[in-house]
Amino acid sequence: MSGGTPTGLTEALAQLRDGRTDAHAYLDTCYDRIDAREPQVGAWQSLRPREACHRWLDHHADWLAGTPLRGLPVAIKDIIDTADMPTTMGSALHADRQPADDAACVAALRSAGALILGKTVTTEFAYFSPGKTANPRDLRCTPGGSSSGSAAAVADGMVPVALGSQTAASVIRPAAYCGTMGYVATRGLMSLRGVQPLAQSHDSLGIMGRNFADIRLIAELLAGPLPTPSLPLQGLHILRVPGAAMGDVSPEMEAAIDKLAAQLREAGATVTDLADDGRIARLVALHGAVMAFDAARNMAGEGARPDALSPQFAELLETGRGIPLADHAAAQAEIRQLGDWLGAARAGSAAILAPAAPGSAPEGHAATGAPHMSRAWQALGLPVVTWPADVDAQGRPLGAQLIGHRWRDAELLELGRKTALLTPSPTLR
Amino acid sequence: MSGGTPTGLTEALAQLRDGRTDAHAYLDTCYDRIDAREPQVGAWQSLRPREACHRWLDHHADWLAGTPLRGLPVAIKDIIDTADMPTTMGSALHADRQPADDAACVAALRSAGALILGKTVTTEFAYFSPGKTANPRDLRCTPGGSSSGSAAAVADGMVPVALGSQTAASVIRPAAYCGTMGYVATRGLMSLRGVQPLAQSHDSLGIMGRNFADIRLIAELLAGPLPTPSLPLQGLHILRVPGAAMGDVSPEMEAAIDKLAAQLREAGATVTDLADDGRIARLVALHGAVMAFDAARNMAGEGARPDALSPQFAELLETGRGIPLADHAAAQAEIRQLGDWLGAARAGSAAILAPAAPGSAPEGHAATGAPHMSRAWQALGLPVVTWPADVDAQGRPLGAQLIGHRWRDAELLELGRKTALLTPSPTLR
Repeated sequence: MSGGTPTGLTEALAQLRDGRTDAHAYLDTCYDRIDAREPQVGAWQSLRPREACHRWLDHHADWLAGTPLRGLPVAIKDIIDTADMPTTMGSALHADRQPADDAACVAALRSAGALILGKTVTTEFAYFSPGKTANPRDLRCTPGGSSSGSAAAVADGMVPVALGSQTAASVIRPAAYCGTMGYVATRGLMSLRGVQPLAQSHDSLGIMGRNFADIRLIAELLAGPLPTPSLPLQGLHILRVPGAAMGDVSPEMEAAIDKLAAQLREAGATVTDLADDGRIARLVALHGAVMAFDAARNMAGEGARPDALSPQFAELLETGRGIPLADHAAAQAEIRQLGDWLGAARAGSAAILAPAAPGSAPEGHAATGAPHMSRAWQALGLPVVTWPADVDAQGRPLGAQLIGHRWRDAELLELGRKTALLTPSPTLR
Repeated sequence: MSGGTPTGLTEALAQLRDGRTDAHAYLDTCYDRIDAREPQVGAWQSLRPREACHRWLDHHADWLAGTPLRGLPVAIKDIIDTADMPTTMGSALHADRQPADDAACVAALRSAGALILGKTVTTEFAYFSPGKTANPRDLRCTPGGSSSGSAAAVADGMVPVALGSQTAASVIRPAAYCGTMGYVATRGLMSLRGVQPLAQSHDSLGIMGRNFADIRLIAELLAGPLPTPSLPLQGLHILRVPGAAMGDVSPEMEAAIDKLAAQLREAGATVTDLADDGRIARLVALHGAVMAFDAARNMAGEGARPDALSPQFAELLETGRGIPLADHAAAQAEIRQLGDWLGAARAGSAAILAPAAPGSAPEGHAATGAPHMSRAWQALGLPVVTWPADVDAQGRPLGAQLIGHRWRDAELLELGRKTALLTPSPTLR
């Protein structure tokens, strides 16, 4: 992944300020990578042509020089509305859908001088049915989903950062499978206006990037100014939730998390395991039920055309329609109680450490892997970061995740940055 | 308001089933009223022409005969996307905005056989800057906002039901000022996909109607089946929150609520006052701060064009941009704590009784009245109903509201129906 892939946003901005590069040259590096790799990777649903991008940079050069992003490119998951490109939601029903407006997050990036390079492949309606994308680390494997194209494009060096969204595991899992950094914001911190919802109880915005400095830069453009916490690992407490508390997990993933816990301890942190009495698994189950209830109501239009939906998605909607309101209310109340329990159990710890996925990316392109490592946190609206902590015997990334406290996203990003430095994965560099 | 205004949905459906009327005749009754009154009332942002409606009814007659709504008309607030009519959000910036899709709530009503008659006037971005609508009960007065046109159209007999949305007081206040029934759903119960957000922490969907049976019918089409509780007033406990706990309230409104409380007691209910130690007023204040924070992030695009915004809206966005994340997080946490306090304080009571507005509709069209009677409940995502409980010395409606428990919308609608029967307002019939 060296040679020919672009530097990260933050580094590129420094070079732009110094005159060591310009936005045209940066764009060409991205586009050269896309030209070389897109036929195999299939990260893009639509892509602004290279020459049109160059013309846009020329046309706006004076204005861009005063903007935070100076014309550097970003990619947008194709569940997020763009006024100048279709937004298909990965659905044949919406193949020609042209939104009237940019989503608020897109508008914020445009105002900050981003070049919206294109739309990245999403699974159908950000649920399970995969698009065309392959895993850039091993083309035989799934990239994960639903933000498949965003993860693949960033991991492969086609673009420095990309927006995604997460309802179950749609940012963290593809980032982990593709071996890049991912971040899900505290639910409610960033606007979801124009981000087509799957389940409004659970939906959050996310960012993929090649490093946490880049992710933080984008996060501040969307959320507003974040504090800059100093967070020495020495003396920090990390609470570990073993993958088995959430469902199947591979021995290699368990070993990777064990190794990471040992590295954190060496750096002066304490790492203890959450006493598991089945409550995390209960959150995992409740998440799924609430998602189905919401999705059925969101998809009132599409649900009337089940023949145009994948069988999995049609089944999700049918499940959701069958959930009595009293059951949904009870599930919401129980999620809240479990959140209070977890809040007390984790009080005093900086973050929760867990596998980001059940293992490395599975082979095959018919499915995107299992989401159970993310459901519990997503049900609670917590911020999460992931990074490639190790690789398995085939050299495929093994992603760890850290789960933060609500609204304390800046702390989590800083902790992610520091922890990722403990675990360099040479084969991914 | 008698003679020439249509019957309610539920009654009309019974007549349609018996063959005593047909959808064309019902439509004409609505349209005759619109033709007579729209020049004064100004409820509609866009309106499907009468002949086009008749053709639509003819074209879909066979299908409509098997649907729940059988081609009866509904109105949609112009903050809610429609694929076949512009959705302007009451903003000059979006005067020609044509959404790609129906909002989920519109799709659900269409699937149920609704005739989408038109779009009703909203204040700018569902905030304070008024549209062209006058109060149909007294044209010198504001209709309230932001769902100004929905309330006016229903209250004036132009359409039996209308969708609205509420972030602060945008359904309850206009319904109260115009003298009709209004309902705000438990936040999260109904999909907000395609409902343009003002503040996602607070936004809820609402329904205006001429009676609670009609509102319940529409609610079930959007939320799914609701239970049918039996809720005798005898023995019920109602907790009253005096208007003064929330801010200014007129003596006439206080008297109307006193009278209603006496009527409830006569019917066998007990009514006691919440011990007020300033916590409700604190919720009112916190609501406003959270709304500003969210709105600033939702309006990333429009916020870059302050000259195209009303001064009030530009100020809201500027306020929101200036709120530090730590303050927002603290506000969200405090709202949650206050919700726990209120939940304990109201345990065992069926609903909270309060004024729906500070008084009757103020004269003038430059503002839409004050929202403080709704902010506390809206911050907590609670379901609310309003109805005209009395009239003031000028014959203007005085609305009461009942605030329910989250997810127990069916109970609240039934309680609203029964309580409204205690307080017939002859001048509004």
